[in-house]
Formats: sequence, structure tokens, C-alpha cells
Amino acid sequence: MKTVSIISTGNELLYGAVVDTNSAYISRALFPTDFIISRHLTVADSSVDLADAIASCLENSKVVIISGGLGPTEDDLTIEALHELYNFNIVIDESALNKMRDVFGNMGRTVDEADIKMVSIPGNSIVIKNDFGLAPGFILEVGDKSIIALPGVPREIEGMFVQGVVPYLYKRYGMKEKKFISMTIAGLKESEINDKIKIIKSINGSFQWGMTARSGLVSITLVEKIDGAAGDNTIYGEFGDIFKENLLLEGFTKPEEEIVYLLQRYNLTLATAESCTGGMIAARITDIPGSSRVFKGSVVAYNNDIKSRILHVPDKLLQDFGAVSQPVAGSMVRMITEHLNADIGVSVSGIAGPDGGTEEKPVGTVCFGFYFCGDLQTETKIYPGDRERVRLFSSHYGLERIRRYLRTLKKDVF
Amino acid sequence: MKTVSIISTGNELLYGAVVDTNSAYISRALFPTDFIISRHLTVADSSVDLADAIASCLENSKVVIISGGLGPTEDDLTIEALHELYNFNIVIDESALNKMRDVFGNMGRTVDEADIKMVSIPGNSIVIKNDFGLAPGFILEVGDKSIIALPGVPREIEGMFVQGVVPYLYKRYGMKEKKFISMTIAGLKESEINDKIKIIKSINGSFQWGMTARSGLVSITLVEKIDGAAGDNTIYGEFGDIFKENLLLEGFTKPEEEIVYLLQRYNLTLATAESCTGGMIAARITDIPGSSRVFKGSVVAYNNDIKSRILHVPDKLLQDFGAVSQPVAGSMVRMITEHLNADIGVSVSGIAGPDGGTEEKPVGTVCFGFYFCGDLQTETKIYPGDRERVRLFSSHYGLERIRRYLRTLKKDVF
Repeated sequence: MKTVSIISTGNELLYGAVVDTNSAYISRALFPTDFIISRHLTVADSSVDLADAIASCLENSKVVIISGGLGPTEDDLTIEALHELYNFNIVIDESALNKMRDVFGNMGRTVDEADIKMVSIPGNSIVIKNDFGLAPGFILEVGDKSIIALPGVPREIEGMFVQGVVPYLYKRYGMKEKKFISMTIAGLKESEINDKIKIIKSINGSFQWGMTARSGLVSITLVEKIDGAAGDNTIYGEFGDIFKENLLLEGFTKPEEEIVYLLQRYNLTLATAESCTGGMIAARITDIPGSSRVFKGSVVAYNNDIKSRILHVPDKLLQDFGAVSQPVAGSMVRMITEHLNADIGVSVSGIAGPDGGTEEKPVGTVCFGFYFCGDLQTETKIYPGDRERVRLFSSHYGLERIRRYLRTLKKDVF
Repeated sequence: MKTVSIISTGNELLYGAVVDTNSAYISRALFPTDFIISRHLTVADSSVDLADAIASCLENSKVVIISGGLGPTEDDLTIEALHELYNFNIVIDESALNKMRDVFGNMGRTVDEADIKMVSIPGNSIVIKNDFGLAPGFILEVGDKSIIALPGVPREIEGMFVQGVVPYLYKRYGMKEKKFISMTIAGLKESEINDKIKIIKSINGSFQWGMTARSGLVSITLVEKIDGAAGDNTIYGEFGDIFKENLLLEGFTKPEEEIVYLLQRYNLTLATAESCTGGMIAARITDIPGSSRVFKGSVVAYNNDIKSRILHVPDKLLQDFGAVSQPVAGSMVRMITEHLNADIGVSVSGIAGPDGGTEEKPVGTVCFGFYFCGDLQTETKIYPGDRERVRLFSSHYGLERIRRYLRTLKKDVF
């Protein structure tokens, strides 16, 4: 069995100051292959603890991948730990040293002894070049097993894993890819999805599957158990028949990606007027490449001044109904789409808290306005939770309603 | 030694679909105490692997905390794993069962056998009540050691840890708090900070310290080694003398928190006009409670339409210099602060990519306009990296310049 253990080293991880995302990255990268991740282990910056961890992981794994502990400081101890176990000569990676001299030279400083440590590697190891930072990684082969040491910086790990580790695993262990299908479902709970998936016959037996919920979305990954199962294009269609517009279009993992795609496809434009979400909807839309062609812009109307002066929401509406009201939300979305000549608009006006709530309009009250190509709709929701949650769920809902509307436009999307 | 091992169980963690934030949460919660976290270990949903993990962690730890594996499905195996090790009777937590009946009753469903599993616990264990979900946690005492089992949902873990686990650790092990001081530094690299901290005499010997870099900020935590060292108020002042305005004001961890605080303090207001950052600066400011009193609003001028129609940037400027230019950035910030009668403004107009770049203005070119109580400034930066990075660093820089300006206003802040 091709098993892998992943070790992260760093006191900052055990202090909880940093969340270990490297192990998840490496796991994700190896997920659609025949390697199986058997454990993630995080230990302190101690050569004894690290050596113990390496030795115990090596008992049950073909490959041990270590992230962290390759820097210049005293608490970078990966090589020391390996040296305790394997007693090799330590050599300097001349190519990495030359690069370091260049980089430091440009900064007007020289390479000192501590820096040299960063480009030192076991003499009998295979270098993994680091195009993203200064410390090279390396692979130490122990019998038919491999210990792969990488720096701890996520950007460096990710680049080096793709450039150096993946090709090595193919060559050394004949790593095989397994095909997989990923989909994202919006607006349903895991338990509801679970019940519905059970009735999709073609996935049973052919696929291993897992679900992950994150911010109102559920991702489903199907990994084929039978070769060729994922090549069968009917799977996505079967999910589509059951989940309808809850299923994001193939290849999309965020509602905003689908929105930008569908706006482009239908040649429509979008504008937003945001109060309590403070620009979050605009920020999420503009995060998508190509959004500049379909997104007209947004007014973040955080107080009544801007609602009346820039959006021209009538003062009377603000006085009669208050800023957090459906008439004001309706006026906001009407004004922004008119001004910007947009086809579709969303407005949000709410009380995110912690203060500003009243008995009639408690914290969490959020009014939405939607303008769908001439059709104006308003509604009010009350979200539980703190400021962050109210803002987040408001932005989810605003985007989701737009996505749903766009999905109703034509039937030929699938 | 009061050592703790933290075990997370879940295939989704080993697939890399979910990042384990629970271990970091628990570590952070125990960091300023005399408990020492010796390892984080993640294993699959397998009762054998989990039992092995528990047994091996218990060898070196006083307390083992397990997150996950307490749900209703077949892959929730914490109790099975513990049962393999300790062979106890399994009983139903009646109070949790009654709560479940109520909750399910309101949803119109009944409690089935799988659900019963969720409220089952070892007969000889101490229940940890779950006010945030359905599955109770429990503590199994083995000699002078404790195994603490919690569900895997972050919101549930966090609540139960504070309500149930912390009081238990105080009572059972006489847990002691250690005082600590946290600070945040903006605009300097870790290596620069490291060199400067070494010269602060009063921290050497008295504190253990660690640094963490995240999105352009470096957090420093000093934990006292000598009782009472953290009560000495001179530490923060010494850091202030060395790091000056790079050091965020005491208690703040984000520039936007400090900005909202200083705007309130000086009775000033802020407005933003954002193009490539698409509302990110506004979203970050409005994330801070109390921002509604000082933040006037923002125009997300994502295309020239909104730049001219809503911001009234002169067409001639757009034609002569292009949207991404210092004259347009200057006009944008002048217009937004005038319109909204704000004291301080920032505008951002740039090319985040992946397309839109030219030879003269490559992807990553970002023009900023700043309006500081009458003083208009513009500048251009070129950021390397992808769309996400360009947008993120642009929003960092915009906020950081405002923070710096506010820090120059009065000398009595420290």
C-alpha cells in the first residue's frame, strides 16, 4: 500500500497561532491518486520530538513528508532530527547558495552563517529546487521508503510540491491518478443532500464519495472505484435531475463564478447598493476574473448621507420607514440600476450589530431589494448570530438569489 | 508535566477537503496556561486507527482531547475506538435525548436508532453538555489521565471547550493561567522585527516569545516565564519606542480596527472609491463594530460609467490618462470625499488581472489617491502576483496609509 504520513513542525502550530494548511494542501494534491494519507502529525520545534515522529511515521508509511524546519534560525531542526536518525554528511546546495548571494546582494547584505544553514542538505539526498523562496527541499531515500522535507511557507510548499515532489512520486513509486468528479450544491443542508444522493444508483459501487460544507455551500467529490466510472458523463446529469438549480453548473465552486459566467453568456450587467454588507457582495463579484465586463459597480451606502446624496433615495422614505426597510431597499436597488444602466441589481440594508437593534427591528434584520430586468422585489430576513455571521449570510443570500434568477433565464444551460 | 495531545478524526481532513481548525482553537485556548500541547494528530475514520492513536498519545500525555467522531453516521467511531480500549457499558444521555426529541419534534421528525447513537456515551464518563448542537461530549478518566471527546463542528467545540472543558481542567488538574502580552506590527518583515526585538532587554529572561506573519501583519506574543513579568506595563512602551507607528495601538490586531478607533477619537469620517479592490477596503472597514459612526460609504467604480456618472470624474481625465492613472485616482478620491463630506478618503484604480494589462501599464499596476483633511496625494504601485494578491495588497496598502496618517495626528495616543 502506498501510504503517506505528513508531519508539520513548528511551535506556532502547537500554540494555535497558525492553522496548519500545508497538510491539507498536500492531502488534496494526493487525493485523486493511489497514495493514501494515513495521518497528519504536528510536533514542536524539537529535534528529539521530530526524530521520534519521523521514525514512528516511517514504520507505517512508504513516504513521510515534512513541512517546516528548514529555515535559518535555531528552531529550524529538520536536518538535525534526520541527522540523529541517519547520521549523514551535511553539504551545501551550491545552486541555492548562489541564488541566495544574488538575492541578498540586491538587498545590500551578505550571506552569514545562519543563512548557510538554510541552503544545507543531507549529502546523500535528492534536491528539490525552491523557485519560490530560498531554502531548498530534499528527499532522503531509506530503503524503499522516502522522507521528503519541504519548507513551511505555504506558497513555497505548493510550488515545490507540483514541480518537484509529484514528478518524483510518479517516477519512484509509479503513482497512479484516479479520476474524480467534483460538484457544488447551494441552498441545501448536508443531511438533505445525503438522503437524495442515496437514490442515485450509478454512483453506488462505482464511486467513493465525500461531502464538505463551507459557508452555505456543500462540495461533493466522487472518486472512482472502478476504472472509467468518472468518464461516464451521465453522473453530472443525474445530479442535475435531482438537485436542479441547487447544483452549480459544472466546473463552478462559488455562486459568484456562476453569476459572472451567466451574466456574460446572457449579455447582462449587474450593480449593487450595499449598506450592512459594506461592499462584500461587490468584493466577491470582483474577485472573479472577467467580472469587469459585467459588473457596473456598487455604492456602499453606509449611512443615510450617501443613500440620499449619491443614490438619491428620497428623504421621505428614509424618514417614514427608516434606512432598514423594504421601501428603502427597493429604492436603493432601483436607483443603482437606473443610474448605472444595469440589468440586474441587489441592495442590502440591515442591522449587523452589535448595536443599532430595536424591539421592532432587532440586530440581524436585513432588508433586500432585487431588480431582475424590470422586476423589482423586496424582502426582509432576520439572521441569528454575530455581526460577521449576519454580514456573511446576507451576502450569501444576495448572491444566491441572483444566481437563481439567472438560472431561470434559459433552459439550454445544461 | 501537564501535557496535552489533540486528536482530530475525519476522512475529510485526510482528504484535504477540510482544514483542521479545531486543534488550533484548542491550542490557542490552552496556550496561556501551564498545559503544554505536545502534538496534533489527525487520523482516519477507523476505530482501529483511532484506538491506536489514543493509546499512543496517552503514553506521553496527561490529557488527550479528541475532536470529531461523535455524530450519527457509520463513520463516527470515537466511542467504538474507546470501547475497544476500555470495554465500558454504553449508556444514553437522557438530557441530550430529550433535547433531541424536542428539536426533531419541531422539525416534524422522530428520533431513530442512528440518532440515538449521537446521544450515547460511556457509562462511567462525565458528560459535557452541548448547548450548540445535539451530540454531547464526555470525559473518560483513566487513572490520573483524562480522555476528552468532543464533536467535530467548530462552533460546538468552541462553546463546549469554554463551558465544560476549561472548568474541568481547573478542577481536576489545578490548571494555572500564565499571563501574556500580544501585539501586532504592520509594515515590517519578520526578519527585521526579529533583529529589533533582540535589543529589548526586558523581554529576555522574563518572556517566551513567538511571532506569526499573516497578510502583511506580524503578531508577537510574549508569555511570561517569571510570574508577574507581564504585569510590568513598560513592555508595550519599549516596543513602542522601537517600532513607533509600525506597532498597532495596544489591543488592536488589524489596521482597520485602529482606523475606526482613531476616526472616532478624532471625530473624523472616511469614504472610499474603489475600482480594482471592488469594495474590499469598505468591507474590511465595515467589518469593525462602530464603523457606521465614522464610515460614510464607498463607491465601487468598477467601470468608467460609474466613475463618470456617479463619481463625476471628468471624461477628459478618463480619455487623456486612462482609468488607471494618478489623475483619475486623484479625481476619484476628491469627488467621493466632497460628495460625502468626508474628512479622509482613499481611492484605488488598478489592473488586477489576469487580463487588461498593457506594456505601459502591466497587470499589477495600481494607482492610489489619498485625501487627508484637505491634502490630496496620489501614487502608483506595481504589485507582483495573481489577481487575488494584487487586490489584497492594494487593500492592505490603502488601509495602512490611512492608519499611518491618523497616527501622525496627535502625540498623546500612547
